[in-house]
Amino acid sequence: MRILFVGDVVGDPGMLAMHQMFSHLNQSLKPDITIVNGENAAPSGKGITRSIVQNFWKLGVDAITLGNHTWDQKEIFDFIDEESKLIRPANYPEGTPGAGYVFIKREKYTAAVCNLMGRSFLLPLDCPFRKADALVKELRTKTPIILLDFHGEASSEKQAMGWYLDGRVSAVVCTHTHVQTADERILPNGTAFITDVGMVGAYDGVIGIERDAIIRKYLTQLPVKFEVQEGRLQFNAVVIDIDPDSGEAKRIQRIRIDDDNPWMD
Amino acid sequence: MRILFVGDVVGDPGMLAMHQMFSHLNQSLKPDITIVNGENAAPSGKGITRSIVQNFWKLGVDAITLGNHTWDQKEIFDFIDEESKLIRPANYPEGTPGAGYVFIKREKYTAAVCNLMGRSFLLPLDCPFRKADALVKELRTKTPIILLDFHGEASSEKQAMGWYLDGRVSAVVCTHTHVQTADERILPNGTAFITDVGMVGAYDGVIGIERDAIIRKYLTQLPVKFEVQEGRLQFNAVVIDIDPDSGEAKRIQRIRIDDDNPWMD
Amino acid sequence: MRILFVGDVVGDPGMLAMHQMFSHLNQSLKPDITIVNGENAAPSGKGITRSIVQNFWKLGVDAITLGNHTWDQKEIFDFIDEESKLIRPANYPEGTPGAGYVFIKREKYTAAVCNLMGRSFLLPLDCPFRKADALVKELRTKTPIILLDFHGEASSEKQAMGWYLDGRVSAVVCTHTHVQTADERILPNGTAFITDVGMVGAYDGVIGIERDAIIRKYLTQLPVKFEVQEGRLQFNAVVIDIDPDSGEAKRIQRIRIDDDNPWMD
Amino acid sequence: MRILFVGDVVGDPGMLAMHQMFSHLNQSLKPDITIVNGENAAPSGKGITRSIVQNFWKLGVDAITLGNHTWDQKEIFDFIDEESKLIRPANYPEGTPGAGYVFIKREKYTAAVCNLMGRSFLLPLDCPFRKADALVKELRTKTPIILLDFHGEASSEKQAMGWYLDGRVSAVVCTHTHVQTADERILPNGTAFITDVGMVGAYDGVIGIERDAIIRKYLTQLPVKFEVQEGRLQFNAVVIDIDPDSGEAKRIQRIRIDDDNPWMD
Ligand SMILES: [Fe+2]
Ligand SMILES: [Fe+2]
Ligand SMILES: [Fe+2]
Ligand SMILES: [Fe+2]
Ligand SMILES: [Fe+2]
Ligand SMILES: [Fe+2]
Ligand SMILES: [Fe+2]
Ligand SMILES: [Fe+2]
Repeated sequence: MRILFVGDVVGDPGMLAMHQMFSHLNQSLKPDITIVNGENAAPSGKGITRSIVQNFWKLGVDAITLGNHTWDQKEIFDFIDEESKLIRPANYPEGTPGAGYVFIKREKYTAAVCNLMGRSFLLPLDCPFRKADALVKELRTKTPIILLDFHGEASSEKQAMGWYLDGRVSAVVCTHTHVQTADERILPNGTAFITDVGMVGAYDGVIGIERDAIIRKYLTQLPVKFEVQEGRLQFNAVVIDIDPDSGEAKRIQRIRIDDDNPWMD
Repeated sequence: MRILFVGDVVGDPGMLAMHQMFSHLNQSLKPDITIVNGENAAPSGKGITRSIVQNFWKLGVDAITLGNHTWDQKEIFDFIDEESKLIRPANYPEGTPGAGYVFIKREKYTAAVCNLMGRSFLLPLDCPFRKADALVKELRTKTPIILLDFHGEASSEKQAMGWYLDGRVSAVVCTHTHVQTADERILPNGTAFITDVGMVGAYDGVIGIERDAIIRKYLTQLPVKFEVQEGRLQFNAVVIDIDPDSGEAKRIQRIRIDDDNPWMD
Repeated sequence: MRILFVGDVVGDPGMLAMHQMFSHLNQSLKPDITIVNGENAAPSGKGITRSIVQNFWKLGVDAITLGNHTWDQKEIFDFIDEESKLIRPANYPEGTPGAGYVFIKREKYTAAVCNLMGRSFLLPLDCPFRKADALVKELRTKTPIILLDFHGEASSEKQAMGWYLDGRVSAVVCTHTHVQTADERILPNGTAFITDVGMVGAYDGVIGIERDAIIRKYLTQLPVKFEVQEGRLQFNAVVIDIDPDSGEAKRIQRIRIDDDNPWMD
Repeated sequence: MRILFVGDVVGDPGMLAMHQMFSHLNQSLKPDITIVNGENAAPSGKGITRSIVQNFWKLGVDAITLGNHTWDQKEIFDFIDEESKLIRPANYPEGTPGAGYVFIKREKYTAAVCNLMGRSFLLPLDCPFRKADALVKELRTKTPIILLDFHGEASSEKQAMGWYLDGRVSAVVCTHTHVQTADERILPNGTAFITDVGMVGAYDGVIGIERDAIIRKYLTQLPVKFEVQEGRLQFNAVVIDIDPDSGEAKRIQRIRIDDDNPWMD
């Protein structure tokens, strides 16, 4: 089973890049399942709206994961419980709207997609490692094919999660820094891992945001309005091949597309 | 002019990887100058000792940069002022021992190497952007060939620095997360940039540290003794080619060597 | 010379408490100078508006200090440079709108009021201790009567500032936690000190904000809209008596007024 | 029932102050139960040792609470499970050594003492509000007399806990900043509250630590060895009177003793 996982889609440039690349990638890579991190997909780069969710479904995305920007658009509270394939970090406290995982069926196989958030430099949610244990226990009753999007800031917390789950899930793909890391690998017990998948959106911004605004913020420490950067685009993702019977990952490949790294079929 | 910049060397495994790889890389890549981030090179992975500094010089390293772990080994206060090619972040407050930059001569050319530290999730040092302005002004009176090791946690702060200095320095290579990013590029005005060079040390640890200890820390929130991970090795670096007359970067290439990515001459 | 320093005034309830108490306090305490921290005085409890500034002047306030909420109301950028007695933390970087100190004349004496912000758990501004040195040097050329509002979170940073300036300024009164501390004292070399003056506003909120909203925030980790708490009021301040010739503080007295601690003339 | 709660005892000066004041306070105040926060009682000001615990028992202390420094002395792992009256924050994850509450019997009445830690600027433990719910539910099956030491940094989190538990416990007394706040009160539904009880130890330090070392730390951002301040002493506590049948607090009184605030029987 082949899963295409696309990193944080940021604002309108992110959606534009999705439209431009998606059918090419589908034709070329033929993934069985496509998952996108959509926490920045609203036009402002903060949160996600109902219409963006619909756009993702129209494109053919199978599941959307989220992160610390999950709730930035208030309207999400109106639709997150209706959209079963839109999942938020599972370690928000009990009673939080939305769900933290979803099952996706492909002929005789079922894949589980789940989402967790790290706590280093982020919110004090429930322990993601204990929650991972609970998720694995529950999801493995249905399928050994499990992909976790672990949304976190600290490289140590993300790598710790990879090793913690090695052999228990098919893939731990991390998000949040918006920069693709070059450390994709299959861990010794068969879990695919990458410290960050990277983002989809402006190529000449600072993590997708207008670069002059970010620089001004660092220089002045004053409130600055952040807009999404316009102009050239980048697209970052990973493709993971999983043995559908064992759930073991066989291969993880980075995809990085921008003007300096053009797409070759 | 070709500069080889090697990311955070972590503990004894890091030094072992340096010894194993260094002559191969020199023969193969023939860099004019080699720089190493040494903030974790002490056997414990914290700070640097006098004997490790000597080892780096013996290997042929031309300059050592540092970061938030600069002062972890107390003995550094005894030798940092004697070792002019061992530099610490320049934005420590005035009066701090050691220097924040060094010049290295190669025949008729001089390169300047400087070090700054970000403030996001790290210490409240002096503003690294303003300090960068001051460094550029001073260093460019002598040479247009300037490499900055910007040691920082947040990807946004690191990318902001790259864009801020684009066209004013030859390279902004960032360190600290110990994970190589895949976003190396030449920015539009000629500055080579990468969000993180990655580390040199254990391949099967968590950012070089014993993985079970890090996992235990996240699980228990109790004090945990961190040792350097043993076993297989990884080596991460970048090679930058600079036009020595203009200081403009022409090429930046990532080097990633581990069991899954073997070295090919 | 007697200075009345009033802690963070929070929202409409804060302004109401100011109107209710101010003439009583003036009649009873007869301060020569009255200073108010106004960083939360806007109706929403965030920042300050032009009309609130005018209200303070009408009440008879002589200077307003600020803090991390200085810039929450965008309109402040329109008037901060015209209002010389409205001061913001002096350790914002050079070029920041507004000033960090003001002189106030009373017959033959002049008092200097200045404002700094701590960096622990707050923004990475310029070093407040070095900036304090510079301020003391500059202000003492005109007067030994100097009051500093040090706006900070960590009790250690605030106490460190008190000891650092002991004998060099008349008073270090700290703000930001919105809770009055009971540690007011004259330090050995004549500087009046208190770790936090406390706030003016709702008595039954959480640091002046609607208590159920704050509790919901801690319980859910979701975005919550914070309104100012309504209902009963509290008023917290200190009165400091200073020898106007030496600048030495002779006495610091806490004022705490609420339903459990009624005002007695 | 009268409970004397003594704030963070810091190092040898803290223990000295305990010895000097304790019998006076007992004779004068005649508390039924005495509780001390001992997280800084080791000679270094970090953690607690077995011999310090014994000293507290010899003095007549009935229970010891802790906080973020609980584990600073490694030996605590050897004795925390044997010392049932030495309790650590109850919201450490399941499996943590030690307990988070203890019952103390006084003739026909039983009091429960429990300990929680805030998460703002501290460790990401389990949610203290949810854990408080669980503790209240469990403890109230035995007694309505419940005192919580809530160890936290942010005044908002501490006040939120007070309001959250108002009417469900007898007292929420907070610790950690080492500075006594002046906001002691009985909340509307009968819970005694104070944002911080303050500390016991050196009067002329910075939160009990050698003041020059702390200032050096803020000035240099370099590693600094912190010793406990020597010299004059301070003692901070609260006395709470509780209706033993209803568990309702009737009165909370601050105790602050130092050279500027001498003890009067
Ligand atoms: Fe994101
Ligand atoms: Fe994120
Ligand atoms: Fe570092
Ligand atoms: Fe490092
Ligand atoms: Fe405030
Ligand atoms: Fe504030
Ligand atoms: Fe403490
Ligand atoms: Fe503490």
